[in-house]
Amino acid sequence: MTPDPETRHVSVIGIGSGDPDHLALGAVKAIARTDVFFVLEKGPEKSSLTRLRRDMLAEHASGSHRVVQAEDPWRDRSQGESGGYAEAVHEWRRRRADVCERLIREELAAGQRGAFLVWGDPSLYDSTLAVLEEITARGEVTFAYEVIPGISSVSALAARHRVGLNRVGKQIHITPGRRLAETVGNDDGDIVVMLDAHESFGQFATEGTWIYWGAYIGTPDEILISGPLGEVADEIRRVRRAARAEHGWIMDTYLLRPSSDGVVG
Amino acid sequence: MTPDPETRHVSVIGIGSGDPDHLALGAVKAIARTDVFFVLEKGPEKSSLTRLRRDMLAEHASGSHRVVQAEDPWRDRSQGESGGYAEAVHEWRRRRADVCERLIREELAAGQRGAFLVWGDPSLYDSTLAVLEEITARGEVTFAYEVIPGISSVSALAARHRVGLNRVGKQIHITPGRRLAETVGNDDGDIVVMLDAHESFGQFATEGTWIYWGAYIGTPDEILISGPLGEVADEIRRVRRAARAEHGWIMDTYLLRPSSDGVVG
Repeated sequence: MTPDPETRHVSVIGIGSGDPDHLALGAVKAIARTDVFFVLEKGPEKSSLTRLRRDMLAEHASGSHRVVQAEDPWRDRSQGESGGYAEAVHEWRRRRADVCERLIREELAAGQRGAFLVWGDPSLYDSTLAVLEEITARGEVTFAYEVIPGISSVSALAARHRVGLNRVGKQIHITPGRRLAETVGNDDGDIVVMLDAHESFGQFATEGTWIYWGAYIGTPDEILISGPLGEVADEIRRVRRAARAEHGWIMDTYLLRPSSDGVVG
Repeated sequence: MTPDPETRHVSVIGIGSGDPDHLALGAVKAIARTDVFFVLEKGPEKSSLTRLRRDMLAEHASGSHRVVQAEDPWRDRSQGESGGYAEAVHEWRRRRADVCERLIREELAAGQRGAFLVWGDPSLYDSTLAVLEEITARGEVTFAYEVIPGISSVSALAARHRVGLNRVGKQIHITPGRRLAETVGNDDGDIVVMLDAHESFGQFATEGTWIYWGAYIGTPDEILISGPLGEVADEIRRVRRAARAEHGWIMDTYLLRPSSDGVVG
């Protein structure tokens, strides 16, 4: 726990999906011992998340900490659904690694502790760990790092709907919206969809499928809708578009439960 | 937050997979306001988990709380891999519902708060939510309930290995060991295996697959092994069997990462 005075130390801290009570004790302790927080700014659109993060630091950080902001590299989203998606993400990640490498080298002294705060859990559709791995592989700056797990938006979604993610003895699949089509029908497991900008659920209203949908989960703006997909799909589309228009952004997740077995669990 | 004086209130609290620091602030608060903790005893074999739970209550419970223990119904495991598995689980769940219904009715007064503590996250391969749903459907005792999400053993595994659960834009599959065979090869997503009593990973040592394996994650007994599956499978088997013999039980989880794409994240 005592940092080597010769070594830079970096923590990747999962801070949950928006509810300050989802912060784990380990995350609270890690925040309290952090000297420098690295924040990549994505622009003004998610200002309510910025406010939540600021409140967390006000409550749990040491008070002698610094917050260092840098601009998050622009990501090319023009590939849409084409095969260039992974390459665009990798290129974006390389530029993120450039920025983070500079932050660690220039803003963190030997013996100090830096931290990246990650919404949800760092293991789930977040690039921070891959970025640190790339910086480590480059070898230009040396540092130790640890990962503090967080409560994912998937766990938070299930908790708010009071449902399990799986049925007895069956699989769970977590997929980006763009790959939902190929995930449906391989077996009768439940499907969690993340990062779905295209409301892909509408394509899969098979008889008896249930959806448990949530947006801004854990925050004061939280919205929950559940029911037979065929019956509530239109309502979700309407509510989702209105919320996105109101807030300027949306972060939503949903669980699709096929109908083959009525027993939940 | 103030309980209705006429209503029994039950919290299902995810308490993480073994590390006391994985407890979320919301779980700490829920434990502190609980009047009665319901504990289903599984026998002496997992005594280190019992000790961890006792330590959590000693640190976070109100002091005026009660702990009510009941025997967990015996579960018929004779079906093995046959089709009777789901039916045996459902039958076991019905008997669990009998026990929990009695606990809520007899041990919890109107206006009081009861709690079930669940290792990991209540949404992942745990029966408590299904049991409460069944009790609610029976209608013999009325109560309100809420779910406090926890850090799952899946998030904890990934954090300890400092890896993401997914690669860029790809799926994640979570499967019981008994259904691993049908989960492999549907796509190139990563696979998390839980509840694998049969070391099923040994069947899938395809060229280039990596495994990130962990047992007793988050506890002082934690063991982590990772590497190319073909190279480390024998070591995992050996270490796993020795640990199970030493402790009398084992709880392990692993991530299988196919080789199709070397880029992690």
